[in-house]
Amino acid sequence: MTFNLSKSIEILRQTPETLMTMLSSLSDDWLHNNEGEATWSPHAIVGHLIHGEQTDWIVRAKIILSEGNDKTFEPFDRFAQERDSKGKTIHDLLEKFKALRSQNLNELEKLQIMEGDFSKKGVHPDLGEVTLQQLLATWTVHDLGHIAQIARVMAKQYSDEVGPWSAYLGILKK
Amino acid sequence: MTFNLSKSIEILRQTPETLMTMLSSLSDDWLHNNEGEATWSPHAIVGHLIHGEQTDWIVRAKIILSEGNDKTFEPFDRFAQERDSKGKTIHDLLEKFKALRSQNLNELEKLQIMEGDFSKKGVHPDLGEVTLQQLLATWTVHDLGHIAQIARVMAKQYSDEVGPWSAYLGILKK
Repeated sequence: MTFNLSKSIEILRQTPETLMTMLSSLSDDWLHNNEGEATWSPHAIVGHLIHGEQTDWIVRAKIILSEGNDKTFEPFDRFAQERDSKGKTIHDLLEKFKALRSQNLNELEKLQIMEGDFSKKGVHPDLGEVTLQQLLATWTVHDLGHIAQIARVMAKQYSDEVGPWSAYLGILKK
Repeated sequence: MTFNLSKSIEILRQTPETLMTMLSSLSDDWLHNNEGEATWSPHAIVGHLIHGEQTDWIVRAKIILSEGNDKTFEPFDRFAQERDSKGKTIHDLLEKFKALRSQNLNELEKLQIMEGDFSKKGVHPDLGEVTLQQLLATWTVHDLGHIAQIARVMAKQYSDEVGPWSAYLGILKK
Protein backbone atom coordinates (compact mmCIF):
# COMPACT_ATOMS: atom_id res chain seq x y z
CA MET A 1 0.00 0.00 0.00
CA THR A 2 1.10 3.53 -0.62
CA PHE A 3 0.27 6.10 2.04
CA ASN A 4 -3.32 7.31 2.08
CA LEU A 5 -4.58 9.78 4.70
CA SER A 6 -8.14 8.54 5.00
CA LYS A 7 -7.03 4.89 5.18
CA SER A 8 -4.55 5.85 7.90
CA ILE A 9 -7.34 7.51 9.83
CA GLU A 10 -9.36 4.28 9.62
CA ILE A 11 -6.64 2.62 11.70
CA LEU A 12 -6.10 5.55 14.06
CA ARG A 13 -9.83 5.71 14.75
CA GLN A 14 -10.27 2.04 15.71
CA THR A 15 -7.38 1.73 18.15
CA PRO A 16 -8.95 3.12 21.35
CA GLU A 17 -12.14 1.06 20.93
CA THR A 18 -10.17 -2.05 20.01
CA LEU A 19 -8.06 -1.74 23.16
CA MET A 20 -11.15 -1.10 25.27
CA THR A 21 -12.81 -4.23 23.93
CA MET A 22 -9.64 -6.24 24.32
CA LEU A 23 -8.69 -5.14 27.84
CA SER A 24 -11.73 -3.88 29.76
CA SER A 25 -12.85 -7.22 31.20
CA LEU A 26 -9.49 -8.77 31.97
CA SER A 27 -7.99 -9.70 35.34
CA ASP A 28 -5.02 -7.80 36.69
CA ASP A 29 -2.64 -10.65 35.83
CA TRP A 30 -3.25 -10.10 32.12
CA LEU A 31 -3.00 -6.33 32.46
CA HIS A 32 0.02 -5.95 34.70
CA ASN A 33 2.37 -8.83 33.83
CA ASN A 34 5.11 -8.12 31.30
CA GLU A 35 7.71 -10.08 29.32
CA GLY A 36 10.45 -9.77 31.94
CA GLU A 37 12.71 -7.06 33.35
CA ALA A 38 12.56 -3.69 31.57
CA THR A 39 9.59 -4.72 29.40
CA TRP A 40 6.09 -3.31 29.36
CA SER A 41 2.75 -4.64 30.56
CA PRO A 42 -0.48 -3.92 28.59
CA HIS A 43 -1.23 -1.28 31.25
CA ALA A 44 2.13 0.43 30.62
CA ILE A 45 1.63 0.27 26.85
CA VAL A 46 -1.69 2.12 27.07
CA GLY A 47 0.15 4.71 29.20
CA HIS A 48 2.75 5.04 26.45
CA LEU A 49 0.03 5.54 23.82
CA ILE A 50 -1.43 8.35 25.96
CA HIS A 51 1.94 10.05 26.16
CA GLY A 52 2.25 9.88 22.37
CA GLU A 53 -1.10 11.64 21.99
CA GLN A 54 0.03 14.35 24.37
CA THR A 55 3.52 15.06 23.10
CA ASP A 56 4.27 13.35 19.83
CA TRP A 57 2.14 12.96 16.70
CA ILE A 58 -0.02 16.06 16.37
CA VAL A 59 2.55 18.24 18.08
CA ARG A 60 5.12 17.20 15.47
CA ALA A 61 2.69 17.53 12.56
CA LYS A 62 2.09 21.12 13.66
CA ILE A 63 5.83 21.81 13.83
CA ILE A 64 6.23 20.51 10.26
CA LEU A 65 3.36 22.68 9.01
CA SER A 66 4.39 25.75 11.00
CA GLU A 67 5.96 28.85 9.49
CA GLY A 68 8.88 28.77 11.94
CA ASN A 69 12.46 28.11 10.84
CA ASP A 70 13.36 25.60 13.50
CA LYS A 71 11.50 22.39 12.72
CA THR A 72 13.34 20.21 15.20
CA PHE A 73 11.09 17.98 17.32
CA GLU A 74 11.43 17.62 21.06
CA PRO A 75 12.77 14.14 21.91
CA PHE A 76 9.99 11.72 22.87
CA ASP A 77 10.19 10.41 26.42
CA ARG A 78 9.63 6.67 26.15
CA PHE A 79 9.50 6.23 29.90
CA ALA A 80 7.11 9.02 30.85
CA GLN A 81 4.20 6.61 31.21
CA GLU A 82 5.75 5.02 34.29
CA ARG A 83 5.34 8.36 35.98
CA ASP A 84 1.97 9.29 34.52
CA SER A 85 0.06 6.04 34.72
CA LYS A 86 1.13 4.87 38.16
CA GLY A 87 -1.91 4.05 40.26
CA LYS A 88 -4.39 4.62 37.43
CA THR A 89 -6.80 1.83 36.54
CA ILE A 90 -6.86 0.44 33.03
CA HIS A 91 -10.30 2.04 32.62
CA ASP A 92 -8.91 5.48 33.49
CA LEU A 93 -6.12 5.01 30.96
CA LEU A 94 -8.35 3.68 28.19
CA GLU A 95 -10.85 6.52 28.63
CA LYS A 96 -8.06 9.07 28.60
CA PHE A 97 -6.48 7.56 25.48
CA LYS A 98 -9.86 7.52 23.74
CA ALA A 99 -10.55 11.17 24.55
CA LEU A 100 -7.09 12.33 23.49
CA ARG A 101 -7.15 10.35 20.25
CA SER A 102 -10.55 11.73 19.36
CA GLN A 103 -9.31 15.26 20.08
CA ASN A 104 -6.18 14.69 17.99
CA LEU A 105 -8.13 13.34 15.02
CA ASN A 106 -10.19 16.53 15.16
CA GLU A 107 -6.97 18.55 15.25
CA LEU A 108 -5.70 16.57 12.29
CA GLU A 109 -8.81 17.42 10.31
CA LYS A 110 -8.46 21.10 11.21
CA LEU A 111 -4.95 21.10 9.76
CA GLN A 112 -6.61 20.64 6.34
CA ILE A 113 -3.64 18.81 4.94
CA MET A 114 -3.30 19.13 1.17
CA GLU A 115 -1.41 16.88 -1.23
CA GLY A 116 1.49 19.34 -1.30
CA ASP A 117 1.91 19.21 2.48
CA PHE A 118 2.86 15.55 2.66
CA SER A 119 6.44 16.14 1.57
CA LYS A 120 7.01 18.98 4.06
CA LYS A 121 9.79 18.25 6.50
CA GLY A 122 10.68 18.32 10.15
CA VAL A 123 13.84 17.28 11.93
CA HIS A 124 13.78 14.29 14.24
CA PRO A 125 16.38 14.67 17.02
CA ASP A 126 17.93 11.27 16.22
CA LEU A 127 16.71 10.32 12.76
CA GLY A 128 17.19 13.64 10.97
CA GLU A 129 14.86 14.87 8.23
CA VAL A 130 11.46 13.23 8.03
CA THR A 131 8.33 14.17 6.09
CA LEU A 132 4.77 14.76 7.25
CA GLN A 133 3.71 11.68 5.30
CA GLN A 134 6.28 9.53 7.09
CA LEU A 135 5.11 10.93 10.44
CA LEU A 136 1.48 10.04 9.73
CA ALA A 137 2.39 6.57 8.40
CA THR A 138 4.47 6.02 11.55
CA TRP A 139 1.59 7.07 13.82
CA THR A 140 -0.53 4.39 12.09
CA VAL A 141 2.10 1.63 12.26
CA HIS A 142 2.91 2.57 15.87
CA ASP A 143 -0.72 1.85 16.88
CA LEU A 144 -0.69 -1.54 15.17
CA GLY A 145 2.70 -2.39 16.65
CA HIS A 146 1.43 -1.78 20.15
CA ILE A 147 -1.78 -3.76 19.59
CA ALA A 148 0.42 -6.66 18.48
CA GLN A 149 2.71 -6.14 21.47
CA ILE A 150 -0.20 -6.22 23.93
CA ALA A 151 -1.46 -9.49 22.44
CA ARG A 152 2.07 -10.94 22.55
CA VAL A 153 2.73 -9.91 26.16
CA MET A 154 -0.50 -11.60 27.23
CA ALA A 155 0.17 -14.72 25.13
CA LYS A 156 3.57 -15.15 26.80
CA GLN A 157 1.96 -15.41 30.24
CA TYR A 158 0.97 -18.95 29.16
CA SER A 159 4.34 -19.91 27.66
CA ASP A 160 4.77 -22.75 30.14
CA GLU A 161 1.14 -23.85 29.97
CA VAL A 162 0.76 -24.90 26.33
CA GLY A 163 3.07 -27.94 26.53
CA PRO A 164 4.11 -29.47 23.18
CA TRP A 165 1.95 -26.94 21.28
CA SER A 166 4.62 -24.29 21.86
CA ALA A 167 6.21 -25.67 18.65
CA TYR A 168 3.26 -24.31 16.66
CA LEU A 169 2.81 -20.99 18.48
CA GLY A 170 5.21 -18.57 16.83
CA ILE A 171 3.94 -15.73 19.02
CA LEU A 172 5.74 -17.26 22.03
CA LYS A 173 9.11 -16.89 20.28
CA LYS A 174 8.81 -13.24 19.26
CA MET B 1 0.81 -17.07 35.18
CA THR B 2 -0.27 -20.61 35.78
CA PHE B 3 -3.29 -21.85 33.86
CA ASN B 4 -6.67 -20.69 35.15
CA LEU B 5 -9.90 -21.61 33.39
CA SER B 6 -11.87 -18.46 34.13
CA LYS B 7 -8.95 -16.21 33.19
CA SER B 8 -8.60 -18.13 29.93
CA ILE B 9 -12.29 -17.58 29.22
CA GLU B 10 -11.76 -13.82 29.73
CA ILE B 11 -9.47 -13.89 26.68
CA LEU B 12 -11.60 -16.27 24.63
CA ARG B 13 -14.65 -14.10 25.23
CA GLN B 14 -13.10 -10.81 24.06
CA THR B 15 -11.60 -12.02 20.79
CA PRO B 16 -14.64 -11.82 18.45
CA GLU B 17 -15.60 -8.33 19.67
CA THR B 18 -12.01 -7.13 19.53
CA LEU B 19 -11.67 -8.27 15.92
CA MET B 20 -15.03 -6.71 15.02
CA THR B 21 -13.94 -3.39 16.46
CA MET B 22 -10.55 -3.61 14.82
CA LEU B 23 -11.65 -4.67 11.35
CA SER B 24 -15.28 -3.64 10.68
CA SER B 25 -14.59 -0.17 9.33
CA LEU B 26 -11.44 -0.84 7.33
CA SER B 27 -10.90 -0.61 3.58
CA ASP B 28 -10.30 -3.74 1.54
CA ASP B 29 -6.57 -2.98 1.25
CA TRP B 30 -6.12 -3.48 4.99
CA LEU B 31 -8.30 -6.59 5.01
CA HIS B 32 -7.04 -8.44 1.96
CA ASN B 33 -3.33 -7.64 1.67
CA ASN B 34 -0.91 -10.12 3.22
CA GLU B 35 2.81 -10.33 4.02
CA GLY B 36 3.77 -11.92 0.68
CA GLU B 37 3.34 -15.25 -1.06
CA ALA B 38 1.82 -18.05 1.02
CA THR B 39 0.98 -15.71 3.92
CA TRP B 40 -2.42 -14.74 5.28
CA SER B 41 -4.47 -11.57 5.11
CA PRO B 42 -6.62 -10.44 8.08
CA HIS B 43 -9.62 -11.80 6.12
CA ALA B 44 -7.95 -15.22 5.81
CA ILE B 45 -6.98 -15.23 9.51
CA VAL B 46 -10.60 -14.71 10.59
CA GLY B 47 -11.49 -17.61 8.28
CA HIS B 48 -8.87 -19.73 10.04
CA LEU B 49 -10.30 -18.82 13.46
CA ILE B 50 -13.75 -19.94 12.25
CA HIS B 51 -12.36 -23.27 11.14
CA GLY B 52 -10.78 -23.75 14.58
CA GLU B 53 -14.16 -23.20 16.25
CA GLN B 54 -15.73 -25.78 13.95
CA THR B 55 -13.18 -28.56 14.06
CA ASP B 56 -10.53 -28.01 16.71
CA TRP B 57 -10.84 -26.79 20.28
CA ILE B 58 -14.14 -28.00 21.66
CA VAL B 59 -14.12 -31.08 19.46
CA ARG B 60 -10.76 -32.06 20.94
CA ALA B 61 -11.80 -31.20 24.52
CA LYS B 62 -14.73 -33.59 24.09
CA ILE B 63 -12.45 -36.34 22.78
CA ILE B 64 -10.22 -35.95 25.85
CA LEU B 65 -13.20 -36.12 28.21
CA SER B 66 -14.93 -38.96 26.36
CA GLU B 67 -15.12 -42.53 27.63
CA GLY B 68 -13.74 -43.93 24.35
CA ASN B 69 -10.38 -45.68 24.11
CA ASP B 70 -9.08 -43.89 21.05
CA LYS B 71 -8.29 -40.33 22.01
CA THR B 72 -6.45 -39.40 18.83
CA PHE B 73 -7.49 -36.02 17.35
CA GLU B 74 -8.25 -35.53 13.67
CA PRO B 75 -5.48 -33.46 12.03
CA PHE B 76 -6.39 -29.77 11.76
CA ASP B 77 -6.63 -28.48 8.21
CA ARG B 78 -4.70 -25.20 8.24
CA PHE B 79 -5.79 -24.34 4.73
CA ALA B 80 -9.51 -25.02 4.92
CA GLN B 81 -10.31 -21.31 5.28
CA GLU B 82 -9.24 -20.63 1.71
CA ARG B 83 -12.11 -22.87 0.62
CA ASP B 84 -14.65 -21.75 3.22
CA SER B 85 -14.16 -18.01 3.28
CA LYS B 86 -13.83 -17.32 -0.43
CA GLY B 87 -16.24 -14.62 -1.51
CA LYS B 88 -17.47 -13.93 2.04
CA THR B 89 -17.28 -10.38 3.36
CA ILE B 90 -15.34 -9.62 6.53
CA HIS B 91 -18.68 -8.89 8.22
CA ASP B 92 -19.98 -12.37 7.32
CA LEU B 93 -16.84 -13.93 8.73
CA LEU B 94 -16.77 -11.85 11.91
CA GLU B 95 -20.44 -12.59 12.63
CA LYS B 96 -19.89 -16.28 12.03
CA PHE B 97 -16.83 -16.36 14.27
CA LYS B 98 -18.69 -14.52 17.02
CA ALA B 99 -21.65 -16.92 16.89
CA LEU B 100 -19.44 -20.02 16.87
CA ARG B 101 -17.25 -18.77 19.72
CA SER B 102 -20.28 -17.95 21.83
CA GLN B 103 -21.70 -21.42 21.15
CA ASN B 104 -18.39 -23.06 22.01
CA LEU B 105 -18.03 -21.16 25.28
CA ASN B 106 -21.49 -22.46 26.18
CA GLU B 107 -20.36 -25.98 25.29
CA LEU B 108 -17.26 -25.48 27.42
CA GLU B 109 -19.42 -24.54 30.39
CA LYS B 110 -21.64 -27.58 29.83
CA LEU B 111 -18.59 -29.83 30.05
CA GLN B 112 -18.41 -28.87 33.75
CA ILE B 113 -14.68 -29.35 33.87
CA MET B 114 -13.36 -30.22 37.33
CA GLU B 115 -9.86 -29.82 38.72
CA GLY B 116 -9.18 -33.52 38.10
CA ASP B 117 -10.04 -33.23 34.41
CA PHE B 118 -7.23 -30.85 33.50
CA SER B 119 -4.60 -33.60 33.44
CA LYS B 120 -6.68 -35.92 31.22
CA LYS B 121 -5.01 -36.70 27.94
CA GLY B 122 -5.61 -36.87 24.22
CA VAL B 123 -3.26 -37.73 21.40
CA HIS B 124 -2.27 -35.05 18.91
CA PRO B 125 -1.52 -36.61 15.49
CA ASP B 126 1.92 -34.91 15.35
CA LEU B 127 2.72 -33.80 18.89
CA GLY B 128 1.69 -36.94 20.79
CA GLU B 129 0.14 -36.83 24.26
CA VAL B 130 -1.32 -33.53 25.40
CA THR B 131 -3.51 -32.63 28.36
CA LEU B 132 -6.87 -30.86 28.50
CA GLN B 133 -5.16 -27.99 30.33
CA GLN B 134 -2.59 -27.60 27.54
CA LEU B 135 -5.39 -27.65 24.95
CA LEU B 136 -7.28 -24.85 26.71
CA ALA B 137 -4.12 -22.78 27.25
CA THR B 138 -3.29 -23.22 23.56
CA TRP B 139 -6.77 -22.09 22.50
CA THR B 140 -6.16 -18.90 24.51
CA VAL B 141 -2.64 -18.25 23.17
CA HIS B 142 -3.80 -19.07 19.63
CA ASP B 143 -6.38 -16.22 19.80
CA LEU B 144 -3.77 -13.75 21.01
CA GLY B 145 -1.26 -14.91 18.41
CA HIS B 146 -3.71 -14.25 15.61
CA ILE B 147 -4.70 -10.82 16.96
CA ALA B 148 -0.99 -9.94 16.96
CA GLN B 149 -0.60 -11.39 13.46
CA ILE B 150 -3.50 -9.31 12.09
CA ALA B 151 -1.99 -6.12 13.54
CA ARG B 152 1.42 -7.05 12.11
CA VAL B 153 0.11 -7.86 8.62
CA MET B 154 -1.61 -4.47 8.49
CA ALA B 155 1.43 -2.63 9.89
CA LYS B 156 3.62 -4.11 7.15
CA GLN B 157 1.46 -2.56 4.44
CA TYR B 158 3.20 0.71 5.35
CA SER B 159 6.75 -0.70 5.57
CA ASP B 160 7.94 1.59 2.78
CA GLU B 161 6.00 4.62 4.02
CA VAL B 162 7.53 5.26 7.42
CA GLY B 163 10.97 6.32 6.15
CA PRO B 164 13.74 6.52 8.78
CA TRP B 165 11.27 5.59 11.55
CA SER B 166 11.47 1.95 10.44
CA ALA B 167 14.51 1.75 12.75
CA TYR B 168 12.17 2.19 15.74
CA LEU B 169 9.28 0.03 14.56
CA GLY B 170 10.15 -3.52 15.58
CA ILE B 171 6.81 -4.78 14.27
CA LEU B 172 8.04 -4.28 10.69
CA LYS B 173 10.86 -6.77 11.25
CA LYS B 174 8.81 -9.63 12.73
